[in-house]
Amino acid sequence: MMQIYADNAATTKMSRTAIDAMLPYMERTYGNPSSLYRIGQEAAEALQDARCRIAALLGCEPREITFTSGGSEADNQAIVSAARNGARRGKKHIVSTAFEHHAVLHTLKKLEKEGFDVTYLDVHATGLVSPEEVRAALRPDTCLVTIMYANNEIGTIEPIPEIGLVCQEAGIPFHTDAVQAAGHVPIHVKAQHIDMLSLSAHKFHGPKGVGVLYARKSLPLVSLIEGGAQERGRRAGTENVPAIMGMTAALEEACAHMAENAAHVTAMRDQLIAGLSRIPHSALNGDVTHRLPGNVSFCFEGIEGESLILYLDDKGISSSSGSACTSGSLDPSHVLLAIGRPHQVAHGSLRLSLGEDITAEEVDYLVRSVAEVVQRLRDMSPMWRDLVSGKKEFVLK
Amino acid sequence: MMQIYADNAATTKMSRTAIDAMLPYMERTYGNPSSLYRIGQEAAEALQDARCRIAALLGCEPREITFTSGGSEADNQAIVSAARNGARRGKKHIVSTAFEHHAVLHTLKKLEKEGFDVTYLDVHATGLVSPEEVRAALRPDTCLVTIMYANNEIGTIEPIPEIGLVCQEAGIPFHTDAVQAAGHVPIHVKAQHIDMLSLSAHKFHGPKGVGVLYARKSLPLVSLIEGGAQERGRRAGTENVPAIMGMTAALEEACAHMAENAAHVTAMRDQLIAGLSRIPHSALNGDVTHRLPGNVSFCFEGIEGESLILYLDDKGISSSSGSACTSGSLDPSHVLLAIGRPHQVAHGSLRLSLGEDITAEEVDYLVRSVAEVVQRLRDMSPMWRDLVSGKKEFVLK
Repeated sequence: MMQIYADNAATTKMSRTAIDAMLPYMERTYGNPSSLYRIGQEAAEALQDARCRIAALLGCEPREITFTSGGSEADNQAIVSAARNGARRGKKHIVSTAFEHHAVLHTLKKLEKEGFDVTYLDVHATGLVSPEEVRAALRPDTCLVTIMYANNEIGTIEPIPEIGLVCQEAGIPFHTDAVQAAGHVPIHVKAQHIDMLSLSAHKFHGPKGVGVLYARKSLPLVSLIEGGAQERGRRAGTENVPAIMGMTAALEEACAHMAENAAHVTAMRDQLIAGLSRIPHSALNGDVTHRLPGNVSFCFEGIEGESLILYLDDKGISSSSGSACTSGSLDPSHVLLAIGRPHQVAHGSLRLSLGEDITAEEVDYLVRSVAEVVQRLRDMSPMWRDLVSGKKEFVLK
Repeated sequence: MMQIYADNAATTKMSRTAIDAMLPYMERTYGNPSSLYRIGQEAAEALQDARCRIAALLGCEPREITFTSGGSEADNQAIVSAARNGARRGKKHIVSTAFEHHAVLHTLKKLEKEGFDVTYLDVHATGLVSPEEVRAALRPDTCLVTIMYANNEIGTIEPIPEIGLVCQEAGIPFHTDAVQAAGHVPIHVKAQHIDMLSLSAHKFHGPKGVGVLYARKSLPLVSLIEGGAQERGRRAGTENVPAIMGMTAALEEACAHMAENAAHVTAMRDQLIAGLSRIPHSALNGDVTHRLPGNVSFCFEGIEGESLILYLDDKGISSSSGSACTSGSLDPSHVLLAIGRPHQVAHGSLRLSLGEDITAEEVDYLVRSVAEVVQRLRDMSPMWRDLVSGKKEFVLK
């Protein structure tokens, strides 16, 4: 039986490069970067080197990089900081979308309770936000636009440079949660008019527990964690040097091979999409062209996504029905509801997120396995029986 | 030349045990614990196993353990949570001390700005807080007592069970920052009447970037990082499974060998204290008996701590003049000021924090080196000249 890890949007396997970049800082250069002696200063130099390399990869200045414990922390800090800066000038309006990651949405909910007003833009049928609709939503009291670079469930890549330009022209800070995009599609924060950006290392074969918040130097950041003066007062706590070195190596590796990886993974993705599209009463979620290279997201009518995942696991396939962060929940995905999928269909969702080493043979196996499991689940499903008998109407053709 | 790492209070070298416990989760069981398939569930089981083992080591229930990105985050979360719980019942008074870690002090400062009232207890000449003074400071509107288990600069171990009992009798939550204590002295949260406790893995040969917040199950925690439902809603973000496994192995190892390590390190510490006490116009900081096994903290009159660190580094000795978190600052240590050291003396401080592998020969080398460097610095010091000439008065005999 094949073993295919097809949940790279949830987390990725660490690369040998990333592990090898961490080990010297676990085994030898373990000093505290705040210390004055040699082994501490070596760690401090490594940290500064990592900051410069990450800045070069993102197209910003080293001092605009803050290392965090991951993507969620970076999202929280970006949004809370912009909100605090706005509130000081009486600006308490934020523009976002309804299908952001929960690290963004839950932070916005918290701010709404504090009196902030949030406009959640429509993401339309394929998950695309319109820059013109962003422009129309801006108000004199808007203090932040936060729109994800690429959606974690359906893979749609937003028109980030265009949205960034709209914000820049209006003088409003623009944050993007690039957790799914970083290392997979080209990012250049200056060229793309991005003021704040979050990323997470474990989504591009780096370690868990570490991420980056880029923030344009003119934007003051609120520290979510108070204490020592690390990260120039923007993030207290002894710096996680090994993880930061692992992340830096992983991002460099991902960016160095981005074009060839994207070409291969996109070809495999399209082959997989073509194969799964032949399953009756199914539909691709997300945009066909503005799409992450590795993302395949489908809805299959008449089945439950959770059973699909478990049966695919028995066939050696690791997949997900949506975001890993909410997989314990029985609610249908807020992302699928946001693009207009009705509850009955949103429950039968499958996300396959491919790694760079995926082969055509594996894609064939994925297509065969999914078709087989969908058929088996439909054969057992009362919901499917109702649909076939005409008792209920099909939503998907 | 000998190489002696004597700054284990700043950070420790990872043990082979801890590294070996991490690697399988970096190389193989890399799944996201929130995922339903095997490789995700294996990670989830490891996480639960770690939670049970940490709980057993601390004397609490697994569900009372929250994994954080480190000690600072745990301190922040404990204090903010207790403050929010208190504020809901109109209780906005907190009892602490003036020589807590900045992760505690800066969080308290933030709360003071929000209208909380904080009583900073006197820590007296050796850094000991009096349980009776804790009792006397309690008010009907006290919502939290937060007092560190052991001080990070001068090593004084507080009478935690006694303070805990005072708080328990009064029905007030008691938090202790045990970042310096965990893995070095026996901790049992139930027996010691501790309601909340913070620890950090890299202080006991575990990895950086991971820590624990223990909170008694009746105490609701505020999430500092919003997002996914990880850690039962108390800490969003993909769990850092490799680091958590490394921390667990490191804490188990530290606790298994605690008695023998403490006996050896205490003996070495006392030999070092005896040797350094022979340097004229010097004084030990902290308590002689209620003291962390590895902590040696001295003030030497007439010199600057920073120069001392740099000269010792040239002799292969890694040391610090206080907390690593504030080493960039020119202010004298708030801890030394809190125990009554005048500015002129507080500037000439040295902390040597010994590791478990320290030898008597190394201690001799430390004594010789410090005595030599102190003498050399005094020979160059205008401050020392003023003291010797009688222009200024000695504070230390």
